[in-house]
Amino acid sequence: MPSQTLIPNTAPRYSFLDDYSEGAHPALLKAILSSNTSQEAGYGGDAYCALARQRIRRHLGREDVGVFFVPSGTSANAISIAACLRPHEAVIAASSGHIVTRETGAVEASGHKIINVAPVDGKLTPQSIQRAMDDNWHFPHMAKPRLVYVSNATEIGTLYTRAELAAIKNVCERNQLLLFLDGARIGTALASKANDMTLADVLELTDIFWIGGTKNGALLGEAVVVKDARLATEYEFYMKQHGSLLAKSRIMGVQFAELFKDGLYFDLARQANLCAETLSSGVAAAGFAVYAVTETNQVFAVLPLGLIQALQEHFTFYVWEKRADDEAVVRLLTTWATEMTEVDKFIRLVQGWNK
Amino acid sequence: MPSQTLIPNTAPRYSFLDDYSEGAHPALLKAILSSNTSQEAGYGGDAYCALARQRIRRHLGREDVGVFFVPSGTSANAISIAACLRPHEAVIAASSGHIVTRETGAVEASGHKIINVAPVDGKLTPQSIQRAMDDNWHFPHMAKPRLVYVSNATEIGTLYTRAELAAIKNVCERNQLLLFLDGARIGTALASKANDMTLADVLELTDIFWIGGTKNGALLGEAVVVKDARLATEYEFYMKQHGSLLAKSRIMGVQFAELFKDGLYFDLARQANLCAETLSSGVAAAGFAVYAVTETNQVFAVLPLGLIQALQEHFTFYVWEKRADDEAVVRLLTTWATEMTEVDKFIRLVQGWNK
Amino acid sequence: MPSQTLIPNTAPRYSFLDDYSEGAHPALLKAILSSNTSQEAGYGGDAYCALARQRIRRHLGREDVGVFFVPSGTSANAISIAACLRPHEAVIAASSGHIVTRETGAVEASGHKIINVAPVDGKLTPQSIQRAMDDNWHFPHMAKPRLVYVSNATEIGTLYTRAELAAIKNVCERNQLLLFLDGARIGTALASKANDMTLADVLELTDIFWIGGTKNGALLGEAVVVKDARLATEYEFYMKQHGSLLAKSRIMGVQFAELFKDGLYFDLARQANLCAETLSSGVAAAGFAVYAVTETNQVFAVLPLGLIQALQEHFTFYVWEKRADDEAVVRLLTTWATEMTEVDKFIRLVQGWNK
Amino acid sequence: MPSQTLIPNTAPRYSFLDDYSEGAHPALLKAILSSNTSQEAGYGGDAYCALARQRIRRHLGREDVGVFFVPSGTSANAISIAACLRPHEAVIAASSGHIVTRETGAVEASGHKIINVAPVDGKLTPQSIQRAMDDNWHFPHMAKPRLVYVSNATEIGTLYTRAELAAIKNVCERNQLLLFLDGARIGTALASKANDMTLADVLELTDIFWIGGTKNGALLGEAVVVKDARLATEYEFYMKQHGSLLAKSRIMGVQFAELFKDGLYFDLARQANLCAETLSSGVAAAGFAVYAVTETNQVFAVLPLGLIQALQEHFTFYVWEKRADDEAVVRLLTTWATEMTEVDKFIRLVQGWNK
Repeated sequence: MPSQTLIPNTAPRYSFLDDYSEGAHPALLKAILSSNTSQEAGYGGDAYCALARQRIRRHLGREDVGVFFVPSGTSANAISIAACLRPHEAVIAASSGHIVTRETGAVEASGHKIINVAPVDGKLTPQSIQRAMDDNWHFPHMAKPRLVYVSNATEIGTLYTRAELAAIKNVCERNQLLLFLDGARIGTALASKANDMTLADVLELTDIFWIGGTKNGALLGEAVVVKDARLATEYEFYMKQHGSLLAKSRIMGVQFAELFKDGLYFDLARQANLCAETLSSGVAAAGFAVYAVTETNQVFAVLPLGLIQALQEHFTFYVWEKRADDEAVVRLLTTWATEMTEVDKFIRLVQGWNK
Repeated sequence: MPSQTLIPNTAPRYSFLDDYSEGAHPALLKAILSSNTSQEAGYGGDAYCALARQRIRRHLGREDVGVFFVPSGTSANAISIAACLRPHEAVIAASSGHIVTRETGAVEASGHKIINVAPVDGKLTPQSIQRAMDDNWHFPHMAKPRLVYVSNATEIGTLYTRAELAAIKNVCERNQLLLFLDGARIGTALASKANDMTLADVLELTDIFWIGGTKNGALLGEAVVVKDARLATEYEFYMKQHGSLLAKSRIMGVQFAELFKDGLYFDLARQANLCAETLSSGVAAAGFAVYAVTETNQVFAVLPLGLIQALQEHFTFYVWEKRADDEAVVRLLTTWATEMTEVDKFIRLVQGWNK
Repeated sequence: MPSQTLIPNTAPRYSFLDDYSEGAHPALLKAILSSNTSQEAGYGGDAYCALARQRIRRHLGREDVGVFFVPSGTSANAISIAACLRPHEAVIAASSGHIVTRETGAVEASGHKIINVAPVDGKLTPQSIQRAMDDNWHFPHMAKPRLVYVSNATEIGTLYTRAELAAIKNVCERNQLLLFLDGARIGTALASKANDMTLADVLELTDIFWIGGTKNGALLGEAVVVKDARLATEYEFYMKQHGSLLAKSRIMGVQFAELFKDGLYFDLARQANLCAETLSSGVAAAGFAVYAVTETNQVFAVLPLGLIQALQEHFTFYVWEKRADDEAVVRLLTTWATEMTEVDKFIRLVQGWNK
Repeated sequence: MPSQTLIPNTAPRYSFLDDYSEGAHPALLKAILSSNTSQEAGYGGDAYCALARQRIRRHLGREDVGVFFVPSGTSANAISIAACLRPHEAVIAASSGHIVTRETGAVEASGHKIINVAPVDGKLTPQSIQRAMDDNWHFPHMAKPRLVYVSNATEIGTLYTRAELAAIKNVCERNQLLLFLDGARIGTALASKANDMTLADVLELTDIFWIGGTKNGALLGEAVVVKDARLATEYEFYMKQHGSLLAKSRIMGVQFAELFKDGLYFDLARQANLCAETLSSGVAAAGFAVYAVTETNQVFAVLPLGLIQALQEHFTFYVWEKRADDEAVVRLLTTWATEMTEVDKFIRLVQGWNK
């Protein structure tokens, strides 16, 4: 039985494993507490979800979009894709996409083929999308491409610029493809120094996308933004059918209302990015390569195996990929909760490493 | 767009609508708060889920069972059923069962037929199960019955006794049927005065069942108990594929650890039942019929339409079913959070009604 | 291993078991033979399918409909329903409907719930459909009814009149429901003396329906008629995805072209009905009850067990349902190939029975 | 509406487009004719299917396997894969595999992910399978590889040797993977000069496989061979649920009984291969490259565009892939029905081409 017998980690090692190691930002917990006893309508019909929708729509600059709260990124992806497609329609995605590599075939489980495309810096390009279209024309013997899936930030922490996303939207429109954006880490993307988009831009350039809460300060919850009016009317049916329409959706409403009250959502993401940038520069200053540019909260550093072992006495992180005989890529993730003293300690160990 | 445009209810009417109107019991919130900053492994591999499993297993009297935390009852049902069945296998359920009437076809969405059986007091019986077997024999032209779904408490608040459940288990074994129990309200069932079972009995008499958190004190979360070793090994794949393996499963672990520390789970249920019993007796004392015996936290009262209207000025509740021209069945739900002063106020209005 | 080890039936008993015991009508075989060596485009793009479509459309009185050939009734039903519905939408069907009782959950396997309605003489009525609508309103917690499934002839051999079907179409339109007609036995239905509809009427009064070949003279094949232009554009994708777009669809084209050249389709059905009528009158003349009126090619006779046993020495047929201690309902099916001498022999045995 | 409006091809061009352009081999048609009027049990329980199973089992050298007749290759693949897998399990296949490129996502439509592997000469290798295993280990976040899909002959007409298939079986067993072989063209594979396997070897080295009828002499039909006893017991449920259990399965039984009476199946395949070999040598003798070695009934020739145009006046065939500016790969398929005079005419045109 996987994970059931895990002994709680007793060694006090600090974790750069992922961006969901801690609970919620204190401001969110406080809001949950103070809202706890009011009686509210179930299934998203409550005052807190209404408030959260209002505040998110203000950031989006549009009132006429549906906003739906679901408990996980996999449910946001699987439900949205199933809701957009007819049974014979397929998804185009980078082979590094989360739906391809880390969701246990959830898209296929809802009946849809994913056409894999080789990523460039973790991203799709208009060219790679067009090539997928050109390769999938033999109808009705092939599933019909109908939706393009992109992640921003990508699974390796890179970003789409506004121009890149606009070019993708353009190729989608020419090919009657819907554009769906997985925003599990849209906070760190839009808070990145390399970013030139707003949430309103993302809304304009996609057909459907989501704003991740789990990886940016919330206990749980992702907010799916649906532009198409008919789809918005149907979306709750899909949520319910997938087991993702929570009776007490209020707890997601409370948290998103707080995150989007005064820009806390982006403040938290900026803090995560700052930690990553500090880690990245520190590692680079020590003379080690950084694999994939550090634009958001993911750092991929190429380190000697000996150093990795030394670091593992104090820290946990993923050893992502063996490289040469004596080095490997490690992945370090930061969040709003990352302690800068631990970042500094990590850098000191790296810089003090006696090659 | 359903529910998106709902104006928050400003009238201060007290709600007996359902058992998920409030947030979490304060003890659970306190535990969430105090655990918030520790770094934990994701996806249920954390110390709090481990602790919750340990405590639940202690109540079950067995160590060798899988315990899994999912965010909603619909996901508990749909995942468990999909995990137990091969594609050509079907479910036998009462036509009043939650999976039949209130889950947007989630079981069918995973590919499985539900064979409907007329309920007796909201329950299945050995006879009704055997009849369903006798009617579904024309293989391979019929889907093969393989799993029986029961709810305890049932959707109308009634209970299975130990003998009743044992008789069902018996007919299941004779027919090579698995027995699955939906425990959304297993707390109020086992805390009922009419109950003669323990959690350990439920484990013994079923193949797989779940313990509902959402309707008994938690913000969210249901604990699925899986006896079959192979199924337990696979269960997390299904959770992930259905979008129900939460990154921060810790928040369900924390809450269930608290609920099962010293019997709080059953204390809360007992309090809900007490409120229901008080309501039920009060209504009966006023000379009105109670439809379906009040054994748990659901009261079904037959009231005159005029009285219903008068009550609706102060309370919200479901008008379940029109009866004669001038009366209807109303459903009143109570929880651990129900205020007894409101119960008393409701009864006073009923008893003061000038017929 | 079911059916694999069956010993070929060596006793020369004549079969009234079903309407697919023989091969194809000789005229169809002849056409297959004479067309055999021409090279044709695959997957329905051949000259014979084109010709069959032309002839069927002539009978329908409309050119602008899609006509698609699939190998079985279950595939016609499952594909058509899956093609019409979005994932959260449900079917309304009589509990005696073929999709409910004899297709191994194929509709559910494509993800859709069937809402069962009690039949009246094997049929749905406007009232029973409206009641199903009234009972399934609690959105988004219930699957949304979207399509009504009827069979003509029904599974017990009864018929819809034009007025009955028009009334159903009317209630469908009022409720935004599509109307789908399973025409496995539409030949014997429209060739019945009790019938007052043409194929053109059926087209007008439904949204999608099919014309059964397997049970009326063909080796295999059903012709699905699709009115909606967009659906017709997509229909072959669904056929292919379900494994029902045959490479050599020509063999279905050849047969349907022959069946609809000069009305052979209805001639064969008339012959089947005549045999059934003869059987039915013969049984009635002997003083036995006929259960369900004999309007098409199915006879349901209530016979003493002793007589049944005597008949079974010479004939095979289904004993449909035990009635009193000493009698049962038997089902007798006839086809274009039924030998009238065997019908006469059957009747003689019944009439000679020494009660 | 695709393919519905196709004008029958009136120009008398000879087709090398595919291996399903003609009807059935005359011996099969004759058998259908002479069996036509006997009354038989439906759904594969007839004497002809029994006889066909007996003869196929004789070729397999084993009695204890299930043999099932389905109408198409896509149904053989989709049903077999769905029957073998649990919902979280995935397939490993070459990216050129028929299930990946030409079945409209039928495998995904039954809920399963396909892990694509780059082919080597159209084939999988033990190394490529092991690599797919090594890349898909992150459970439960990844679908679990459970079945390997190979085609023999492959989609580009190449072959597996006995040693190659044994090595693949070996890596499958080490990794607890089932091995499934798509035998749409197993006839031309086993009849190839390059082949060193028998049907009995294929049975030994796989877990489940099928013998294609449609592309080797039959009107329709593929025979699926199932070794696992439990799966064989369930297989007809899956067939029925997928709309692929034909009422008159007898027509597949009759044809397979004929094909496997005296080795006709392999005689037909040998004839197809001979035509392909003649085409291939003729093209090579004219100095043009043959892309992918011609081992079975597929010829891939690299020809100048001018020559292709000249050939198209007399022949139809697929232009498979543009190469340099002035040449392209064409695909030529041959069958048991290919006329050698047309092959000769094709070669004369190629050899007479004035470059």
